[in-house]
Amino acid sequence: MGNGSRTVAKDGIDAIRAMLAAKPRPVGWAERRVRLDEVGAVWPVADDISGEPVDCGGVPGEWSLAPGAEPSRVLMFFHGGGYCAGSIVSHRRLATEAGRAARMRTLAIGYHLAPEHPYPAAHEDALAAWRFLRGQGIAAGAIALGGDSAGANLALALVSRLRAAGEEGPACLWLASPWTDLTLSGSTLTTKDADDPLIHKPYLEELADAYAPAPLDRTDPLISPLFADFSGFPPTLIQVGSAETLLADATRLAAAMGAAEVAVTLEIWPRMIHAWPLWNARLEEGRKALERAGEFVRDWVR
Amino acid sequence: MGNGSRTVAKDGIDAIRAMLAAKPRPVGWAERRVRLDEVGAVWPVADDISGEPVDCGGVPGEWSLAPGAEPSRVLMFFHGGGYCAGSIVSHRRLATEAGRAARMRTLAIGYHLAPEHPYPAAHEDALAAWRFLRGQGIAAGAIALGGDSAGANLALALVSRLRAAGEEGPACLWLASPWTDLTLSGSTLTTKDADDPLIHKPYLEELADAYAPAPLDRTDPLISPLFADFSGFPPTLIQVGSAETLLADATRLAAAMGAAEVAVTLEIWPRMIHAWPLWNARLEEGRKALERAGEFVRDWVR
Repeated sequence: MGNGSRTVAKDGIDAIRAMLAAKPRPVGWAERRVRLDEVGAVWPVADDISGEPVDCGGVPGEWSLAPGAEPSRVLMFFHGGGYCAGSIVSHRRLATEAGRAARMRTLAIGYHLAPEHPYPAAHEDALAAWRFLRGQGIAAGAIALGGDSAGANLALALVSRLRAAGEEGPACLWLASPWTDLTLSGSTLTTKDADDPLIHKPYLEELADAYAPAPLDRTDPLISPLFADFSGFPPTLIQVGSAETLLADATRLAAAMGAAEVAVTLEIWPRMIHAWPLWNARLEEGRKALERAGEFVRDWVR
Repeated sequence: MGNGSRTVAKDGIDAIRAMLAAKPRPVGWAERRVRLDEVGAVWPVADDISGEPVDCGGVPGEWSLAPGAEPSRVLMFFHGGGYCAGSIVSHRRLATEAGRAARMRTLAIGYHLAPEHPYPAAHEDALAAWRFLRGQGIAAGAIALGGDSAGANLALALVSRLRAAGEEGPACLWLASPWTDLTLSGSTLTTKDADDPLIHKPYLEELADAYAPAPLDRTDPLISPLFADFSGFPPTLIQVGSAETLLADATRLAAAMGAAEVAVTLEIWPRMIHAWPLWNARLEEGRKALERAGEFVRDWVR
């Protein structure tokens, strides 16, 4: 091969790693938000997806619909970004393709971010958005609740909040690379540190300080859902990559939910990195993970 | 309802629990083997299954084939029973229905049991049977390897043995209620003790003493595969019930295999007990678990 062949994009996860390495995470919350919108939305939404903004009881949201999807069933989605970044924009390709795989409408939620809006602002937004959706005449059993990373944390917390309020919860949960332990006690924070290109303990400490500053107790199960009482939780799919410092946040969550008699499926995907389905446009494992998530959701949302 | 209504068989797992409670595990290895053959084979093999005994290089085996199954693909199966009980007979309904779900032939192996034949006798039988099967012209990639409980332990050990010998391993692993830690360090041995009708620590200690007596080291990864190096292991489905003292043997295995870049799917089934797919004839969750196992196997065996 002639010169220049090394600059050709590699296939698969190595190409995603290269893309991320070329756009390292900056210092500063505003700069980080811009960067996550850029790396999350580096490949655009598919042409055949229709979308429109919606006010979810004071919280910004966005509907999306793929051809053939059933609009009376809804995948409600909370984006990741450590409660301090991420947006409807950064996760648009992820949410819309998840809806295609699940063959249902999606509702992505733009909840308030820390540090400007620390805990429990996101919880209040999640509850408001959930009640807005129910108010549209969508039965709880017709709703799947999904999220990645901090968005998965928020999804778990919403189910706890709904149960505490005596309100019916979603038909199922889909959690990608969940961040469940803000005490940062997972063993893979150390063992996967060199392998994970995105998430390292000092960064998580920054996020936790911003979202749940002292004197908030990070062992509070509403802040660290790993420690929650999972009784009555709906069937849950957890997907995580083997190259994640947060691997143990997922495996411990599966063990805890399963012990509480929740129907749990945990998938560990070799070589995949944090929230890899974001890059489904160029990553076969991202598309496959969404297809599996779609199958799971369709098994439980009737 | 008239008198006697309380004696009518309950549905589902409660009926299985009642059946087991009516046939408690006796003292004595011979008596235990008779009892496991009885409770495992309490419901017969389906009428449409054909089967025949086979000598697998000196190890007793049994072929089975469901209508429409592909005879050139084989699910090789190791029964459970703590390495001290269990047989082709006790697990015939399980193995044959797993083959139906996987749409392939099965080969069930009647390996030698402890205490008469302690470690590594079962490993030698497993290797001999594997090599017999390969000698029948079946490619390694056309073989799925499955087992429940101690049989799952043996399946994991066989993959380690094959890797050490430089031989190609199976296309995938299916492990139901695996017993992976003969040091008995799992937390659920305590937390699930009252919920589990079958497996309790004193019994496991008896089994471990019989199979791996001192001075054998139960931290040896060939005896406790939880501690194995899983690099290069094939895609693995682990199924476990929430009412099992061995729940943590499964969840820790999933975490360890996933960290080693194995494609792992862990399913935790609410309220299910140890090796519940045995009773698929009368247990919907048993049939569903086998159907999921069959789907998984078909994804990887080509």
